Amino acid sequence: MILATGTVALDTTRTPFKTVERVLGGSASFFSLSARFFSEVSIVAAVGNDFPASYWQSLENSGVNLSGLQKIKDAKTFFFDSTFSFDMYSRTANKTELNVVETFTPHIPDSLKQSEYIYLGTLTPEKQLAVLREFSNPKFSMMDTIEFYIQHSKSALEKTISEVNGIVLNDIEARMLCNTPNLMKAAKALGKMGPEVVIIKKGEHGSILFYKDAVFPIPAYPLENVIDPTGAGDSFSGGFLGHIASKGKLSLDNLKTAMAYGNLMGSFCVEDFSVSRLLALKKTEIEKRMEKYRELTRF
Amino acid sequence: MILATGTVALDTTRTPFKTVERVLGGSASFFSLSARFFSEVSIVAAVGNDFPASYWQSLENSGVNLSGLQKIKDAKTFFFDSTFSFDMYSRTANKTELNVVETFTPHIPDSLKQSEYIYLGTLTPEKQLAVLREFSNPKFSMMDTIEFYIQHSKSALEKTISEVNGIVLNDIEARMLCNTPNLMKAAKALGKMGPEVVIIKKGEHGSILFYKDAVFPIPAYPLENVIDPTGAGDSFSGGFLGHIASKGKLSLDNLKTAMAYGNLMGSFCVEDFSVSRLLALKKTEIEKRMEKYRELTRF
Repeated sequence: MILATGTVALDTTRTPFKTVERVLGGSASFFSLSARFFSEVSIVAAVGNDFPASYWQSLENSGVNLSGLQKIKDAKTFFFDSTFSFDMYSRTANKTELNVVETFTPHIPDSLKQSEYIYLGTLTPEKQLAVLREFSNPKFSMMDTIEFYIQHSKSALEKTISEVNGIVLNDIEARMLCNTPNLMKAAKALGKMGPEVVIIKKGEHGSILFYKDAVFPIPAYPLENVIDPTGAGDSFSGGFLGHIASKGKLSLDNLKTAMAYGNLMGSFCVEDFSVSRLLALKKTEIEKRMEKYRELTRF
Repeated sequence: MILATGTVALDTTRTPFKTVERVLGGSASFFSLSARFFSEVSIVAAVGNDFPASYWQSLENSGVNLSGLQKIKDAKTFFFDSTFSFDMYSRTANKTELNVVETFTPHIPDSLKQSEYIYLGTLTPEKQLAVLREFSNPKFSMMDTIEFYIQHSKSALEKTISEVNGIVLNDIEARMLCNTPNLMKAAKALGKMGPEVVIIKKGEHGSILFYKDAVFPIPAYPLENVIDPTGAGDSFSGGFLGHIASKGKLSLDNLKTAMAYGNLMGSFCVEDFSVSRLLALKKTEIEKRMEKYRELTRF
């Protein structure tokens, strides 16, 4: 079983083609709606009193365990308003209201303390570490982070990195954190900090896995139309960790297939706004795209 | 047999680690020193009276047919002086002396007119077209270009593109030429101009092939140390077209393997300055790396 912490958020997302307001977002939402296709998954997070009942229902109906999702009466939900550039390659934050995320400290209900796979979605590195330490012996823990913590909480971040089994971050973050333009060198440096699994996401260029002495670069599933890139990274992590949890053990083969599922789940996520595509998705569509992916990348 | 036109140049290359002066460079040099591992290859180009005999000897000793390489008495060799940034990801031109390239019009000796595979390395689009038209019925012709001609000779460039079978260019050039940030859309637009094979190179992120309805993205061979990126693109083309020429027919399978050889030849090229690595390379090293490449990318 997987436990995911992070944010359950409201997003206002402006693209050159359309704007959607206060839609369901957040790292824990995207992660769990992706991971649910592979394994049982629970969210530990908090929302405020403005969180729409329909969003709660959507998460619950999709099979995500919400026993660790708290609704805080006197608080508002994390809110993020952003605009994508014309080419959809860069995003400008218009407004970030931390709200409930600022004061909330994730607490793991006893019923979820046996979770074997832990995803530490973006929160402060201190909170990520606090969550991790509530588990006595997880099989595999994986974290994500953002530029803000690399710039402002580097030593706390390094402490958390030293205690997880895996880290997933994008190429810009990896270069920034490790002070090198070379991703191979960045990955080595990250591995020396602790995690045995290092994953660097490169958006449209795919992703790279580093595990022991192995390097596994994998191209993205080719897409002509990207509607909304929000959540692609956490959807990747959901597919990746979901597959690992379903297999029950780390091996290079399992990790490679997990990378492919991660890329695929990211490719589905960006095909519609918010979590819409992940909610509508069927397992058979994933397997069909996987077959096509294997076929088209083979040489 | 492959015929390559383009430049045979002298490069001064400045990297953060080392500077090399007036070393052997140019699109036709890199292309043919790469392609020679797969097929017979001839160069049609010109150098000036300052071209070192030792460079001529290196090309000749490596098995490249130089019967179409002219030494022009009253001219100097194309010269390019450039500096790589600290991170090796961008290059600044310090000096470009066209010299013999400006006045020289490539002329195909009769003995080479039966060449079946034609590589039009970077020259003006008008000269590329003139070379192409000297062949009555080539099996496959492929061109490269540079930003300068996209910006300054767009209609001539489109004319040449409409007459070749394949085009290879990098992601920045593809986006610029087709006015779209999306590489899938750019490739479709390029295909509509004429070529049935469209290849977009993405440096450290690998490359993508578009052929009929098929898309084949392939990651780069992972390298930790890049010494000098000069010539990687033409080395790619040499491996690609070399493999196609050795197979004698286009098929999706041959094209995919050709892409892999292209990426591999690029990966060898950047491991040393100028053409040094290509000159020292052995066919067994290529096959060994190919085996490793297949193994590490498989999932």
